[in-house]
Amino acid sequence: MLYENLHPKGTIEKFLPPDKFMGVLDGEAPKLASDYAVDEDESTRLEYIENKPPLSNMQNAYDFEQVAKNILPKDAWAYYSCGSDDEISMRENHYAYQRVYFRPRICVDVKEIDTSTTLLGSETSVPFYVTATALAKLGHPEGECSIARGAGKEGVIQMISTLSSMSLKEIADARIPGATQWFQLYINEDRKIAKEMVKEAENLGMKAIFITVDAPSLGNREKDKRMKFVNDTDVDLGDTVDRDSGASKALSSFIDCSVNWKDIKQVKSWTHLPVLIKGVQTVEDVIEAYDAGCQGVVLSNHGGRQLDTSPPPIELLAETVPVMKKLNKLRPDFEILIDGGVKRGTDVLKAVAIGGKDVRVGVGIGRPFLYANSGYGEEGVRKLIQLLKDELVMDMRLLGVTKIEDLTSRHVDTRRLIGREAINYLYDSVYIPIDAVKFSNEN
Amino acid sequence: MLYENLHPKGTIEKFLPPDKFMGVLDGEAPKLASDYAVDEDESTRLEYIENKPPLSNMQNAYDFEQVAKNILPKDAWAYYSCGSDDEISMRENHYAYQRVYFRPRICVDVKEIDTSTTLLGSETSVPFYVTATALAKLGHPEGECSIARGAGKEGVIQMISTLSSMSLKEIADARIPGATQWFQLYINEDRKIAKEMVKEAENLGMKAIFITVDAPSLGNREKDKRMKFVNDTDVDLGDTVDRDSGASKALSSFIDCSVNWKDIKQVKSWTHLPVLIKGVQTVEDVIEAYDAGCQGVVLSNHGGRQLDTSPPPIELLAETVPVMKKLNKLRPDFEILIDGGVKRGTDVLKAVAIGGKDVRVGVGIGRPFLYANSGYGEEGVRKLIQLLKDELVMDMRLLGVTKIEDLTSRHVDTRRLIGREAINYLYDSVYIPIDAVKFSNEN
Amino acid sequence: MLYENLHPKGTIEKFLPPDKFMGVLDGEAPKLASDYAVDEDESTRLEYIENKPPLSNMQNAYDFEQVAKNILPKDAWAYYSCGSDDEISMRENHYAYQRVYFRPRICVDVKEIDTSTTLLGSETSVPFYVTATALAKLGHPEGECSIARGAGKEGVIQMISTLSSMSLKEIADARIPGATQWFQLYINEDRKIAKEMVKEAENLGMKAIFITVDAPSLGNREKDKRMKFVNDTDVDLGDTVDRDSGASKALSSFIDCSVNWKDIKQVKSWTHLPVLIKGVQTVEDVIEAYDAGCQGVVLSNHGGRQLDTSPPPIELLAETVPVMKKLNKLRPDFEILIDGGVKRGTDVLKAVAIGGKDVRVGVGIGRPFLYANSGYGEEGVRKLIQLLKDELVMDMRLLGVTKIEDLTSRHVDTRRLIGREAINYLYDSVYIPIDAVKFSNEN
Amino acid sequence: MLYENLHPKGTIEKFLPPDKFMGVLDGEAPKLASDYAVDEDESTRLEYIENKPPLSNMQNAYDFEQVAKNILPKDAWAYYSCGSDDEISMRENHYAYQRVYFRPRICVDVKEIDTSTTLLGSETSVPFYVTATALAKLGHPEGECSIARGAGKEGVIQMISTLSSMSLKEIADARIPGATQWFQLYINEDRKIAKEMVKEAENLGMKAIFITVDAPSLGNREKDKRMKFVNDTDVDLGDTVDRDSGASKALSSFIDCSVNWKDIKQVKSWTHLPVLIKGVQTVEDVIEAYDAGCQGVVLSNHGGRQLDTSPPPIELLAETVPVMKKLNKLRPDFEILIDGGVKRGTDVLKAVAIGGKDVRVGVGIGRPFLYANSGYGEEGVRKLIQLLKDELVMDMRLLGVTKIEDLTSRHVDTRRLIGREAINYLYDSVYIPIDAVKFSNEN
Repeated sequence: MLYENLHPKGTIEKFLPPDKFMGVLDGEAPKLASDYAVDEDESTRLEYIENKPPLSNMQNAYDFEQVAKNILPKDAWAYYSCGSDDEISMRENHYAYQRVYFRPRICVDVKEIDTSTTLLGSETSVPFYVTATALAKLGHPEGECSIARGAGKEGVIQMISTLSSMSLKEIADARIPGATQWFQLYINEDRKIAKEMVKEAENLGMKAIFITVDAPSLGNREKDKRMKFVNDTDVDLGDTVDRDSGASKALSSFIDCSVNWKDIKQVKSWTHLPVLIKGVQTVEDVIEAYDAGCQGVVLSNHGGRQLDTSPPPIELLAETVPVMKKLNKLRPDFEILIDGGVKRGTDVLKAVAIGGKDVRVGVGIGRPFLYANSGYGEEGVRKLIQLLKDELVMDMRLLGVTKIEDLTSRHVDTRRLIGREAINYLYDSVYIPIDAVKFSNEN
Repeated sequence: MLYENLHPKGTIEKFLPPDKFMGVLDGEAPKLASDYAVDEDESTRLEYIENKPPLSNMQNAYDFEQVAKNILPKDAWAYYSCGSDDEISMRENHYAYQRVYFRPRICVDVKEIDTSTTLLGSETSVPFYVTATALAKLGHPEGECSIARGAGKEGVIQMISTLSSMSLKEIADARIPGATQWFQLYINEDRKIAKEMVKEAENLGMKAIFITVDAPSLGNREKDKRMKFVNDTDVDLGDTVDRDSGASKALSSFIDCSVNWKDIKQVKSWTHLPVLIKGVQTVEDVIEAYDAGCQGVVLSNHGGRQLDTSPPPIELLAETVPVMKKLNKLRPDFEILIDGGVKRGTDVLKAVAIGGKDVRVGVGIGRPFLYANSGYGEEGVRKLIQLLKDELVMDMRLLGVTKIEDLTSRHVDTRRLIGREAINYLYDSVYIPIDAVKFSNEN
Repeated sequence: MLYENLHPKGTIEKFLPPDKFMGVLDGEAPKLASDYAVDEDESTRLEYIENKPPLSNMQNAYDFEQVAKNILPKDAWAYYSCGSDDEISMRENHYAYQRVYFRPRICVDVKEIDTSTTLLGSETSVPFYVTATALAKLGHPEGECSIARGAGKEGVIQMISTLSSMSLKEIADARIPGATQWFQLYINEDRKIAKEMVKEAENLGMKAIFITVDAPSLGNREKDKRMKFVNDTDVDLGDTVDRDSGASKALSSFIDCSVNWKDIKQVKSWTHLPVLIKGVQTVEDVIEAYDAGCQGVVLSNHGGRQLDTSPPPIELLAETVPVMKKLNKLRPDFEILIDGGVKRGTDVLKAVAIGGKDVRVGVGIGRPFLYANSGYGEEGVRKLIQLLKDELVMDMRLLGVTKIEDLTSRHVDTRRLIGREAINYLYDSVYIPIDAVKFSNEN
Repeated sequence: MLYENLHPKGTIEKFLPPDKFMGVLDGEAPKLASDYAVDEDESTRLEYIENKPPLSNMQNAYDFEQVAKNILPKDAWAYYSCGSDDEISMRENHYAYQRVYFRPRICVDVKEIDTSTTLLGSETSVPFYVTATALAKLGHPEGECSIARGAGKEGVIQMISTLSSMSLKEIADARIPGATQWFQLYINEDRKIAKEMVKEAENLGMKAIFITVDAPSLGNREKDKRMKFVNDTDVDLGDTVDRDSGASKALSSFIDCSVNWKDIKQVKSWTHLPVLIKGVQTVEDVIEAYDAGCQGVVLSNHGGRQLDTSPPPIELLAETVPVMKKLNKLRPDFEILIDGGVKRGTDVLKAVAIGGKDVRVGVGIGRPFLYANSGYGEEGVRKLIQLLKDELVMDMRLLGVTKIEDLTSRHVDTRRLIGREAINYLYDSVYIPIDAVKFSNEN
């Protein structure tokens, strides 16, 4: 049996009313692997699991995705990999990085490369961190704990989701001594619960609070919702019209969608930890967060899982930095983090370079760690970090910089950043082009 | 037997000279399903019908198209789905929406979302409406009536085509109490008939008249025309050259192509109802319509079925609003509607946001309702509306707006709007690229 | 037997030294159909010929290409269809038209549409003409004569190539009374021969002389050259390095590549006919031609068969008109013709509209007529003209113009014209992308 | 047996410490063909070798790649063909050339075409040269020597890599009398060795020294690294995390990554030969090189094998020339060479034209010569040169220039140069788009 129960032991039970709790994590959550009847799909999957490539064959983040895609139960894969609507933002998140080109400098002594830096005052071996994602247990029985151990051992910061499949305490307990963890907070309708969660995070040694504000409602994640229908096509036409949404829906019910800037200030009053806003998508709101006294923002569209055709964060970053600078709204303790679509060391360096001398930028990586953890647990997480770290070292050397702090906006060329049109796979799959004339012997 | 006769009972007979009538709706119209011999294609189709997915599996507008594509007789599908020439405008109509990105605002209290608004003074539960399309009976025996009921029950306005397959009276009778219907008018060569049609529309409770001006001639719809040839390849080479055009051609003969701005004013003199111009494609003509005292325009290229490579309406809208504003040619009772290519709640919101505080924008959706009606009748129409409504609620929440009136041009980024080059499927299918050198053992 | 000998009876023999003649049209020319052994390819081809779709099924220019592609001998197809190098210019020639969008006007009385106009003082039923192409006999035994008859009967001007497969006299004899023919001249090294050719053209009733200047050397047409190798792979490695080039090469040997502006003036001195330069590719050379007193130019890159990545003519036209206007270098008797990539009535209208009120534009169509003639002879040529004429009528009506002279630059939007990157099919076919990691049970 | 040992006889042994030497060229280097067990892949390969197309069938550089792809052992192919990361720079290197369009001039007397010019004071029959690439012996037993002979016989300059598979002496001995060779230098950690290498190059008659500065670390070449894993999937999960990198890694260990501008000046002090910097990627570094007194630079991203998404050299060239001109930093003896992605004569002419009257530009071609040599040895190299030379003659004639020195920046249109977004094949292969709804009878 690959997975244990998704049931988190601790925080969530405490904070969630029992009826909702059942809905969220027992009743509607994706089935565990052990629950699957061994049908054709499942036996293919088991064969893949048996033939899983050794960790030493992994070359990049895509390889982990390739493994996860084949060895995860279909609905876990759907939940992890899905974006919203036509998944345009999800894909553009990455593609936008490809539209940034480097301007590598030569004849720099690059013998010694140091990828370490600090983020929110904590030391880190690299300028990227593991960002918060829900339900790691869908992919691996040790869930967020193996991620914690893997990241910690490699000197990488972990951000922990309110919607983790293990309790915050369990994950904090898994923390490697000296490692840094951050807590991602969905503000509960009941502010007392929200406050308790912040306090608990503080007590458990979390070093920053990230309030997620881009999920007042869950996005329209169709791959995820489709899972429900696959074995369920005998419903009547007379069926009442009802839009269900698989695992995603289950997770949204206890998020308060009335959160506003006053709530942000209230959370700040509860804690001495840095408070940042996660899910900022316009320059205007970066300014708001700055003015509200936050220690930073995460430019993010939730991995393309919320509002489709919201802008790729790297585009937004390139737009934001000069505006903030011009408005003189940058201070050393205001950091801009960014997540979504990061696959390569080059992606990480591009984001940090755009911040350059003006603002410290940290880069969150989410799904790739879920995939690495699903395939190989803690060792997979470490391997992925090592691969990315190797890329960083190599890339910095080739770019002619030896320290993260040396990256400047002159190292990147962002002129192509605006301008791509994404494919709409659904549109194109449904569309039938016109054919040229047929011969009589053609069908 | 799936379909009844396409024969509309009422208006059309009345207004059409008998000989034309025969041509239009009896003689050349697509065969009814009952007329099809059960050949291979037909038996595949019947199998698809038997295995039609339950309505509860529908997730988006594309799904309804997917169903219709497989269960409709080939010529009905061709008539509904075709665009003109290389279908570039048809496809760009949608793709252009993808070139508009959102600028979502955060920390807005989005607990209560209200998608309702008014269009031309009538209340509507959403800022989109069912736009006029011809021959709904090709897809479903209850034709425009099931659309009327479905739309009405969901609080959505229906625009009814002069070329409906049912009489205006029948469709008006199907109206749900309190629901709003609009009438789309092709101005008949015989102005007396045209006037009668307007009067009848008024009497039957229509709330606005839309004069279609982009169809002085039908476009070159090759998919539709091709249908004719499929079972008819034994024609002689000596055959006189004659360009026939399937169902499309049949429908065009009684549309007057000499309509000009004086006629528009004349129609206005016949009725107290708002009169709008449908099919406007340049800013210049929006101005003309404004100056002629119309209550608005529909920016439309007729779903890409008329002049190919005419501009996507959303592009035109983005160009129009600032010009009209600058010329001070906007008044509260001048509305700009737009149709073509709308598939998603996001598309609807983008159009409305571009209008923003300057002009009220309503969004027409055509083919998706034909597909929903073809597959599932009234229930399909309702389901599609509910899905789009759900998307709107979700999208507004994620965009940080609670009321339609709150949408502003600051919520969208239109910088990428101009610039794509469409694929030419015909060109590419006929083209044979050069190969690299062959080895002797290769063919 | 489908074809007769390619041997032209008249002009060419007269003007070509016997040894070159042999090389050009006997020795190296593509084999006639009757010479083909009936191998597998050939028997497929014969089956296609038997199942050729009736002419009445033809809907557009692509359909004729589709037919020709399957029924022509492979080398004839290669000769007709090939472009140079990677065929980027050839494909962009058409795709560039798709980057021009229309700005259709409404409420114009478009009852009566007149597609006729004049080109170089001759009346024509349409603003397009059949442009000069070599070796029509490769596709049809009546070669350029059936094109002459088809075009003439439809009131369309024919430009006749120096490299026609029939003699100029034969083609002139095939001229329909009242029809217009133009003569395309390659200036022979021996100016006396060149002068005789011009005189003969005059005597045979040609109405204009077009001096082709874009073929001082033939382009690198690899599809065409490849044909040679197909049945010829037993050559030794020790073979002397020699670049042969199939049918194309055979045709080039008697073209003088030292032609310069003085020669142009000399040709003008030989005749009272209008003299135009064909193959102009920069604004600078349009100015030169204007200053040299020519009656016009043909913007052309020789159908993408000469220098690859030379600009699409429609792009050049859009660039040229405003420059010439600004320089005040436009006179009523200076016309700008354009050819390459024209497939649709909309393409024709776009070119004419770009000229607008400033300069009369005529549009040459080449390959599509070779294909129509190859498949169906004179009747095919007529059908293609009728289809394009039908498109023109329809398109003009939808664009809101009733006469060719009414087209203005306000009817088109050329903002997207510059900017596409063509696919490189050879590059992409040779390239092997990297794969994601393999599972042990994968190959 | 196709290949001999890769062991270079001379220079490398001399300069490399024995332990490194083993690692670089014996221990980890790709296996020789003779070492391969005849598995399925190998027998397919042998069949391809038997059916290799005759040299006379080669039409262009792609054809040689097509041959090499099929007849090389998989790891040799991987080593030659690979780029870094997602190979975006590698592919853009070529695609960027396609974004430059020509502006061909007409009516120029182009009877006599002369493709010869000088580069760094040496005469050459063409403005391109064979650039330095490592390990030619992987593809052909005569390695760099057959390239030397082929290039020399055709009057083309050869640049020789420090990492050649044959000793510099051997390659110099293979030089055709009168031919020109250049030496590419990796600066050894031990400057004495570096100096000896320069001295030896001088003594062996090299005419210029190119210091490669874009490889302080090898890029992340995944195709190459993947080779290692193919037959090696039984590694434990517990395996220590270690990133190996196939042939590429083996070659990097003795390159000093602390090289800076002072080292450049030092190298200059060792020799009277022209010293150029290879691997320059920004205008800033062209200026540095100019100020350091170098005789030129090579704009290069190492064939897309180093830092991915570094800019295509032709883009950089178009940016560099006007800047250098404006800064008045161009002198007759400062030349700008460029390599990467060159496939066609048109590519060569575009680069030279961009330099135009302002700076002499030479164009390096690498992989295509490895492929030609792998397939056909010296004769293949000559054939490729002849094909490219033929293209140059043809292209110059069609462009209206007779001498290399006549090319000007007015002959090219670089407006489209910036702006493409490359495909990410890995991303797209791992991504699974969402499907439309399924029917019950669909899988």
